[in-house]
Amino acid sequence: MTQGTRTTQGSVVGVGLGPGSQDLMSVRADRLIRQATHIAYFRKKGRKGHARSIVEGLLAPDVIELPMEYPVTTEIPVDDPRYNALLSSFYEQSVAQLIEMANAGCDVVVLCEGDPFFYGSFMHLYTRLLNQVSVSVVPGITGMSAAWTATGQPITWGDDILTVLMATLPEQALAERIAQTDALVVMKIGRNLNKLRRALVTAGREHQAWLIEYAAMAQQRVLPLSDLDPLAEGTENVPYFSIVLIHGNGRRP
Amino acid sequence: MTQGTRTTQGSVVGVGLGPGSQDLMSVRADRLIRQATHIAYFRKKGRKGHARSIVEGLLAPDVIELPMEYPVTTEIPVDDPRYNALLSSFYEQSVAQLIEMANAGCDVVVLCEGDPFFYGSFMHLYTRLLNQVSVSVVPGITGMSAAWTATGQPITWGDDILTVLMATLPEQALAERIAQTDALVVMKIGRNLNKLRRALVTAGREHQAWLIEYAAMAQQRVLPLSDLDPLAEGTENVPYFSIVLIHGNGRRP
Ligand SMILES: C[S@@+](CC[C@H](N)C(=O)[O-])C[C@H]1O[C@@H](n2cnc3c(N)ncnc32)[C@H](O)[C@@H]1O
Ligand SMILES: C[S@@+](CC[C@H](N)C(=O)[O-])C[C@H]1O[C@@H](n2cnc3c(N)ncnc32)[C@H](O)[C@@H]1O
Repeated sequence: MTQGTRTTQGSVVGVGLGPGSQDLMSVRADRLIRQATHIAYFRKKGRKGHARSIVEGLLAPDVIELPMEYPVTTEIPVDDPRYNALLSSFYEQSVAQLIEMANAGCDVVVLCEGDPFFYGSFMHLYTRLLNQVSVSVVPGITGMSAAWTATGQPITWGDDILTVLMATLPEQALAERIAQTDALVVMKIGRNLNKLRRALVTAGREHQAWLIEYAAMAQQRVLPLSDLDPLAEGTENVPYFSIVLIHGNGRRP
Repeated sequence: MTQGTRTTQGSVVGVGLGPGSQDLMSVRADRLIRQATHIAYFRKKGRKGHARSIVEGLLAPDVIELPMEYPVTTEIPVDDPRYNALLSSFYEQSVAQLIEMANAGCDVVVLCEGDPFFYGSFMHLYTRLLNQVSVSVVPGITGMSAAWTATGQPITWGDDILTVLMATLPEQALAERIAQTDALVVMKIGRNLNKLRRALVTAGREHQAWLIEYAAMAQQRVLPLSDLDPLAEGTENVPYFSIVLIHGNGRRP
């Protein structure tokens, strides 16, 4: 029971913010964020950061902020080993900063869009932090839940099969998976929109698809994907926060 | 601008409670439930109701409660037309009660486990209420998010494919889908546990599977599925709130 100068190690908690609306955060997340002395979040260079924007107005006035700025990778193709190396060293550096804060006795809240363990960037920090500091996760409402809620139609019924795909997959894989599932969610669309549309056509399901942009955010937009004009190849005509989905059609007594 | 005796029609809102822990409810759900004058929820005859238990302590003392009690269907096989007919008339009756409340000018909060539009029972009321009263949905954290969070491992990485299956599917379909996906979530396990285990073996993935019981609830239990002793066929040895999952293994810089 000595009360020495030894500092108790702090912790890192990845907190799911939900899809974007402040009141779709969990009560636990809301409490952790309001009480936070230290927060960290990813952002693109020169931007405020989307996760940071979601918590605007909730933070203590003297909160200490650690923005973790993604390195610019636009020049490097995703399959180039330098791409992975650059990201990897960025994650290592961010982890070092978080460990430093925790070792100084601070509890750090890392702001995560949606649910941290569902295709989230925090996972890359989490696996590196394990066994080094106390690290935990608060789940959140996913972007896809907000997206199907925005369409006003349930996503899955009875024993419907739901498949979640990233539009970064090859066109052939997309087409096959889209043909084989009952309900569908496609994320990470951006530059892959035209490829995804072709895959939906191959699967014969282009008229069942909905596009949801900015689900649960002020700019939310919901439309049948076929209402969107096709653009020239390579054009990015949907925002980063876009989801395409097809509702299931299972048993409904 | 006449102030007559005409009552404004009330509304029905299906509110996602999240996976079970009170503070994993959204801030919006928490507020709606605390302010509710009328709540409705499903339950089995003779039970308190799981959704009702989650909100214990949050409700106004004079809240009016409408428990909607499932008809007993244990004697009727799921594929018997009488099964559907019985459920259908139960939903019709519940909808009539909700419409009566709304027509009397009341706003009714329907308590929904997890996310209402994700394999939820409220969907059966929702589609019947559409075009009759004002009806909306508040998304929630799903049981599966709580389940993968409980394992302490991210569910999906990079462009992993996630497949969500109900264990009520035929064994062959389960085995094929399990073999073809990166990450897996299986719900509605109960009596289908042995069938699911055989399908996992056929797919060669039984040693990758985790079982999560009561995710985010007091009784939460997480174990490799292979640690669970096989029971005699037909025995139900996992609780209703059980999820089996396999983590994805995608690109991680
Ligand atoms: C890196 S993933 C992160 C997913 C997040 N962890 C979640 O639980 O939703 C980013 C992708 O999620 C989807 N997304 C997340 N939130 C969204 C929202 N509110 N509206 C539309 N799309 C969203 C988009 O497809 C986006 O490209
Ligand atoms: C009718 S579905 C409802 C799903 C719910 N709407 C959701 O969003 O999670 C019921 C199934 O969900 C799963 N489930 C839901 N919540 C759970 C929890 N907290 N722990 C374990 N399983 C859960 C179980 O597999 C259960 O059989």
